[in-house]
Amino acid sequence: MTHCFPRDQRDHTMTPLELRRAVRSGQFRVPTAGYCGAFAQANLVILPKAHADDFLRFCQRNPKACPLLAVGEPGQWNLPALGCDLDVRRDVPAYYVYRDGALAAEAETLAELWRDDMVAFAIGCSFSFEQMLMQAGIALRHVEQGRNVAMYRTNIANQAAGPFAGNMVVSMRPMKARDAIRAVQITSRFPAIHGAPVHLGDPAEIGIVDVGRPDFGDAVDILPGELPVFWACGVTPQEAIRGAGLALVLTHKPGYMLVTDITNASLAAF
Amino acid sequence: MTHCFPRDQRDHTMTPLELRRAVRSGQFRVPTAGYCGAFAQANLVILPKAHADDFLRFCQRNPKACPLLAVGEPGQWNLPALGCDLDVRRDVPAYYVYRDGALAAEAETLAELWRDDMVAFAIGCSFSFEQMLMQAGIALRHVEQGRNVAMYRTNIANQAAGPFAGNMVVSMRPMKARDAIRAVQITSRFPAIHGAPVHLGDPAEIGIVDVGRPDFGDAVDILPGELPVFWACGVTPQEAIRGAGLALVLTHKPGYMLVTDITNASLAAF
Repeated sequence: MTHCFPRDQRDHTMTPLELRRAVRSGQFRVPTAGYCGAFAQANLVILPKAHADDFLRFCQRNPKACPLLAVGEPGQWNLPALGCDLDVRRDVPAYYVYRDGALAAEAETLAELWRDDMVAFAIGCSFSFEQMLMQAGIALRHVEQGRNVAMYRTNIANQAAGPFAGNMVVSMRPMKARDAIRAVQITSRFPAIHGAPVHLGDPAEIGIVDVGRPDFGDAVDILPGELPVFWACGVTPQEAIRGAGLALVLTHKPGYMLVTDITNASLAAF
Repeated sequence: MTHCFPRDQRDHTMTPLELRRAVRSGQFRVPTAGYCGAFAQANLVILPKAHADDFLRFCQRNPKACPLLAVGEPGQWNLPALGCDLDVRRDVPAYYVYRDGALAAEAETLAELWRDDMVAFAIGCSFSFEQMLMQAGIALRHVEQGRNVAMYRTNIANQAAGPFAGNMVVSMRPMKARDAIRAVQITSRFPAIHGAPVHLGDPAEIGIVDVGRPDFGDAVDILPGELPVFWACGVTPQEAIRGAGLALVLTHKPGYMLVTDITNASLAAF
């Protein structure tokens, strides 16, 4: 798959609505990182109403990993809180289909799988705060190295709700201490997009044995004088979903996010 | 010297004005840590008008080490911005007298040394943010161990102004990473009392060779799983004053601060 839109046209040519319509018409099937940079992107979880209340409580109890941007009513595939003319079944460039707790398929649309009892959850995504960090002059190694961010399973237990439990997954970005301090300040302003880091310094303190071998994404270099800084990650709910073993759960494919009309700036708590 | 006021009466019996009057009448000659905890305490620097403009620019250029709470006019010994019925010549429990860049004497009052060309500078003090940290449940090792905070000379150069230059002095408090992150959040709200840390983690990154041997104050233990967290320190201007070698500069004695009527809460930037 190639980029349908040259990189030098990103953000300059598309509004979030235009991007969603490009997805819906099949023209856009690539990762959304870097597109519509002023606007929040969202993790998507869709599950049957029978499990939606448990999952809502799971998000409420684990807000750093699962900050909720919007929750639909059963059967509601538009989420006006996220944007106009938005369709969670068709506006994400790639979906995952989980059956019985295991990834069963990828899909380009959920039109066939959608049911009237499905409830959609939109969860904040670190793409938003990464933009804020880069605007503040903080270089992000995985962006520099053209890699996916490094993610790790930790020993930080989630607060369970119904069948949803497991441990927190974190993303890691290495930086100098002065940048880490600035990054705490910047990301603290955005509780809806994972907020402040949950840890920095020694990875072993949160149960990470080998920081050079992430559980998801790509390893990145940690240079002398840098600290690894760890944020709660939106992969946490996908892990909890696997663990719950439900018959059917639909999600976005990591990196292929739902692009909303919510400006990142509007999510600042202060 | 013994405490004139039993510790169990601290804060409960004295307003800042009452404490200043106790100092002025000679009844209070002890360190001010822990007294009038809701109110800001200040570092005091008094120097002749001939050097005051340079020192003011030095503070402006180094706001993390020298956050100004108030500056007087030449000869002005009351500073209404800091409190009512306040006299910088007599309301500090102990003073230092620097002559030709060297500590020449201690004094209980500046009544004899005050001149009509003297300008008083009041600089924020970390006692204020320490109270905020402890209220947030973050234990401070030097308080637990009954020691003075550990302070270090760094290789972080101050921005010079006139004869005032030198390097930043920092205070260090060891804590777990999660507390360090919370401490960044809390102290970021108080730019008038040194603000966010300037460094955390490896002391060598800011030129500290042996964290077990502070240049001022007392060494404290750093336990496994803890990071040293470093804040700009109000000793920085005293170091710059020594380096400037002026004929006469008057300051508070470290730990014996000017207690103001300014509530710490009112200094929160947000």
